[in-house]
Amino acid sequence: MTIRARFTAPVVLPCDAECSVLRDAAVDVDEHGRIVHVGPAADVPRAPLDAARVELTGILLPGLINTHAHSPMTLLRGAGGDLPLMRWLQDVVWPAEGRLRAADVDAGMRLGCLEMLRAGVTTSVEMYFYGDRIVQAVLAAGSRVVLTPGIIAVPGWDRLGSWQSMLAGISDWIDADGLRFGPGERIELGYGPHAAYTLPPEALVASAQAARERSALVHIHVAESAGEDAELRAGYGSVPLMLEKLGVLGGRVLAAHCVQLSDADIDVLAGHDVAVAHCPGSNAKLASGIAPVLALRAAGVRVGLGTDGPASNDDLDLWEEMRLAALLARLSAGDAAALTARDALLMATSGGAAALGRDDLGVLRPGAWADLVHVDADDPAFVAGASTPDGQLLANLVWAAGSRTVRDVWVAGERVLAGGQPTRLDLAKVRAQAAAACAHLLT
Amino acid sequence: MTIRARFTAPVVLPCDAECSVLRDAAVDVDEHGRIVHVGPAADVPRAPLDAARVELTGILLPGLINTHAHSPMTLLRGAGGDLPLMRWLQDVVWPAEGRLRAADVDAGMRLGCLEMLRAGVTTSVEMYFYGDRIVQAVLAAGSRVVLTPGIIAVPGWDRLGSWQSMLAGISDWIDADGLRFGPGERIELGYGPHAAYTLPPEALVASAQAARERSALVHIHVAESAGEDAELRAGYGSVPLMLEKLGVLGGRVLAAHCVQLSDADIDVLAGHDVAVAHCPGSNAKLASGIAPVLALRAAGVRVGLGTDGPASNDDLDLWEEMRLAALLARLSAGDAAALTARDALLMATSGGAAALGRDDLGVLRPGAWADLVHVDADDPAFVAGASTPDGQLLANLVWAAGSRTVRDVWVAGERVLAGGQPTRLDLAKVRAQAAAACAHLLT
Repeated sequence: MTIRARFTAPVVLPCDAECSVLRDAAVDVDEHGRIVHVGPAADVPRAPLDAARVELTGILLPGLINTHAHSPMTLLRGAGGDLPLMRWLQDVVWPAEGRLRAADVDAGMRLGCLEMLRAGVTTSVEMYFYGDRIVQAVLAAGSRVVLTPGIIAVPGWDRLGSWQSMLAGISDWIDADGLRFGPGERIELGYGPHAAYTLPPEALVASAQAARERSALVHIHVAESAGEDAELRAGYGSVPLMLEKLGVLGGRVLAAHCVQLSDADIDVLAGHDVAVAHCPGSNAKLASGIAPVLALRAAGVRVGLGTDGPASNDDLDLWEEMRLAALLARLSAGDAAALTARDALLMATSGGAAALGRDDLGVLRPGAWADLVHVDADDPAFVAGASTPDGQLLANLVWAAGSRTVRDVWVAGERVLAGGQPTRLDLAKVRAQAAAACAHLLT
Repeated sequence: MTIRARFTAPVVLPCDAECSVLRDAAVDVDEHGRIVHVGPAADVPRAPLDAARVELTGILLPGLINTHAHSPMTLLRGAGGDLPLMRWLQDVVWPAEGRLRAADVDAGMRLGCLEMLRAGVTTSVEMYFYGDRIVQAVLAAGSRVVLTPGIIAVPGWDRLGSWQSMLAGISDWIDADGLRFGPGERIELGYGPHAAYTLPPEALVASAQAARERSALVHIHVAESAGEDAELRAGYGSVPLMLEKLGVLGGRVLAAHCVQLSDADIDVLAGHDVAVAHCPGSNAKLASGIAPVLALRAAGVRVGLGTDGPASNDDLDLWEEMRLAALLARLSAGDAAALTARDALLMATSGGAAALGRDDLGVLRPGAWADLVHVDADDPAFVAGASTPDGQLLANLVWAAGSRTVRDVWVAGERVLAGGQPTRLDLAKVRAQAAAACAHLLT
């Protein structure tokens, strides 16, 4: 392995299990975009003379991981936002999605990628349709995606085919292109069976089986709100119990939301090593409730953070989810130390990667991809600048700095955001395309 | 009245009771910095040839009002942030405040003003010490303050004098300089009796009486957390009932927090027209609880939004409080329409002004001060730009845009933020002074 670039910064946060804070440290990246060394600058081996030097003045940390998103829905952001849930879906969202074309998904996803990169989010788990366009947009932006194309069987979406054809489409795609592909393995494919209440049980079983055969991720909505699963709960007790009984809970399963859980449900999730994508902002905005994050973590469940779709939660800013996760956990527990800045940062980085079953993302360590975020330590959020003591620095980062302070972003060692501006996408063009798609959808 | 400047923008939000959205509108400002006309550009009278023209491309709205802050505590931001409440106070905050000098308050307040202006907050209600330094910092920044110097009787703060001398100091100051003074009446004085649990009853009575004699605001912490008022509740039933019995609840009273309220307490507050400064972020972070905002509003109580001090909540970004107020109200009510983007925006502007008993702030109407905020409508938050339909535009503004999109700010017609940078303060100098003060306090 050749060191092709050496990044140095006054503060490096590897986001390892200890949430270490390295001072005056270096991150070496090889020609494939993977990390070779991380450590105090004084300790890393001599880099070749032709290696690029990237000397940073702020804080370097891994790219954030958004574990649950429908990012092309940027186009519907704020539409009918003050309507109650069912009227919002029936009068605004579903009619608009009925007009959705492949080109709209491309436009919405490009805007989503741009917003995520600006917020330091390098990977998102996407459940939506027209997956080829999502891949196209991600490759154009230079970001990274775990794409779990939607599988659904409800009126309206049947124009895109049966659940069987949606499922077969994913399997064929993985069999043709592999589980991971693209420059820097920017694309990973998985399965997105939407939910227990939008699919027949045999679709859930078939999705899980196809995924297991390919070591692929199953990404599914579970127990998001009190009303939705009433019938299923009557039959099985709960959706987790149903999924267990059906044999869906094996392999890599990522359950989004998990708001309405009993203790027995938590045991089932923990017992089958199901991971959870916690979406506190969406769950609060739609009044679905607060997921029992502390109990899930105590049971050993891997919990990442997600924004959900920007139609309901309205930007794609994972820093807000960090803060909300901590605030809501503290309110629920009545304990001001229940979930710390450190906990929240790890949930958004290495914890999110763990929820996807990936150890090569969300952490700065040899072998991981060089997905890097550079935060401005001169922002007033850091009262004492880069020399702030460790605990205070982490608190400043999570509680006061946030997306505003993200300056530069690299994915697989390639700079895709420079000084807050995308290097690959043309902001004005992305905006214009999104505005045109938005006008088409909402009229 | 002479029109000295005409502001035009594709969208003007006066933040009146209807939350009107004016398209292609103008705001005229006179030589004193007060608004003369607001309305569609086609309808306003001809402006004199020598009036300045400020042609804006985004959204113009009134400056936000932070109804509860201790902004000089920027210096303690993030210190000991992962400690439980009492250890945090005893081990970190109080020892640090014991080292507090007048110059530190100046440095901390300048940083606070800078951060607030960048977030579009033009007025804050400040309870802290060394009030003359707070005034000095506010005048230097060009922002606006309702200063209610702290009156407190607890060990540690007695080095600043007795509660009697603190109270007399405020009365003397008002009697000398008037209730409002400074260029554009940037300073208003009031009384800050800290809380029922930190002052003897006679101090509360004397403060209220002195304030009433001068038509001044009384700004007091009420029912913030479950533990603090246990003894008082034993004697009087609750702090609101105690304050009523003592005769404190007359004139202009602004009660901060009001988390732990019974229905009877809400009736008392409503009956005496007490206003509430709702601080959802601070209350969540310290696990104090969720204030019953919907019940307060339903009872007719004026409710504004506050950040509380940046030692506990950690920036001074009122946009986050808007979102949190709506999210927590929705969670509490189990209703996704319980508090809308419109409601939240009005709480942060005209509703906040109403909570202070001011009708000349937080709203764009003739006679009000020209405290203006210009938001970038080209931000991706506004998918369809300035031409977004009304409801969606308000949702985009509150849920997705926020402080990041604040470009320019005027106070009393004077530009104090231009392109995100303060016009009066030197950012690097403010940061350096704050860092020095911070180092002195925390070592």
